[in-house]
Amino acid sequence: MKGIYLVTDEAACQGRSLESVVASAARAGAAWVQLREKKAGTRVFLQKALDLKAILKPAGVPLIINDRVDIALASQADGVHLGQSDMPYAQARRLMGPDALIGLSVETWEDVEAAQDMEVDYLGVSPVFPTPTKTDTKAPWGLDGLARIRNYSRHPLVAIGGIHASNAEAVITAGADSLAVVSAICSATDPFEATRHLTQIFKRAKEEKP
Amino acid sequence: MKGIYLVTDEAACQGRSLESVVASAARAGAAWVQLREKKAGTRVFLQKALDLKAILKPAGVPLIINDRVDIALASQADGVHLGQSDMPYAQARRLMGPDALIGLSVETWEDVEAAQDMEVDYLGVSPVFPTPTKTDTKAPWGLDGLARIRNYSRHPLVAIGGIHASNAEAVITAGADSLAVVSAICSATDPFEATRHLTQIFKRAKEEKP
Repeated sequence: MKGIYLVTDEAACQGRSLESVVASAARAGAAWVQLREKKAGTRVFLQKALDLKAILKPAGVPLIINDRVDIALASQADGVHLGQSDMPYAQARRLMGPDALIGLSVETWEDVEAAQDMEVDYLGVSPVFPTPTKTDTKAPWGLDGLARIRNYSRHPLVAIGGIHASNAEAVITAGADSLAVVSAICSATDPFEATRHLTQIFKRAKEEKP
Repeated sequence: MKGIYLVTDEAACQGRSLESVVASAARAGAAWVQLREKKAGTRVFLQKALDLKAILKPAGVPLIINDRVDIALASQADGVHLGQSDMPYAQARRLMGPDALIGLSVETWEDVEAAQDMEVDYLGVSPVFPTPTKTDTKAPWGLDGLARIRNYSRHPLVAIGGIHASNAEAVITAGADSLAVVSAICSATDPFEATRHLTQIFKRAKEEKP
């Protein structure tokens, strides 16, 4: 499962509903969608997860929930994305079961090393570039840092942070297996076209890569 | 399971650790403890739950987690307390299983009626009196409102909000099966003595009640 990984940010959707942006991205070839919701209460968060699951299930696009294992379980989402301040991997895996997709953000080299022993489904390399979307992150990895992780880690890498159409190819060349974007789709004039364009860049770069 | 129900508020503990306050309350006869944590990230919240579970399990005092089913499951807590903005009861029961304790806050008469069909283990009548601890609640029920719920509901009632030693007996007489307190224990000069005193008032009032 590789390609464009949409991370939602309703505030960045410029007045459009989250559902409409996600539906457009799914139609245009997004490979997975992560629902990130840091402010809503549990009931509102769960309802959003259920709404997105209803859109994504027929499209065959996995839904990943940021942080909240309870929301993932209750919405029958496909997995959970864990930051370093979220539930530790082992407990999340125990609750979610062996088939769930579990991703883990790595922000330091120690995080990368610690993840080597975990059966995570991908590492979220965060942030690759400086990004205004998330302000609580550590120093950017840069393309060099991404390449260093690629050489070391046994896990698929999802690069996130400041990725858009102009730098997507370089990120793939440096070692990313998937490209996660927030603003590049959520804030795009046309989320469908933005997703399609990123997907094309992704496919082309992967074909060219030795 | 009836008696004094401690709801934690670390900020109200006046510099003492949550663990020391909870341990004192458990030794002094608290019947259950709810971990309420509205600001911490998931990992910190989970660690607090595990710490409290380690204290309460040997004491035979159930640990209830506020809102977060994932924290309850990962810490093997005994149950979860749901507000009206938290996960709906049916989903929480499905995830927690038939033996978990599930409490539900009721803040309006509609909440009380809706709960009648749910297999909740208690209703949290919230708030009974005005309280500075929680500012997002509706108008207080008062003793009259509590008595009205007692006459209608098939569920045990845990009264919460502004309860302390001077009004505890009146709350029990009005129909409470348990008394939930925050400040009356967390902020007490001596949490052990405060819990013991409330427990004595509770037992005496229950004996006197016809």
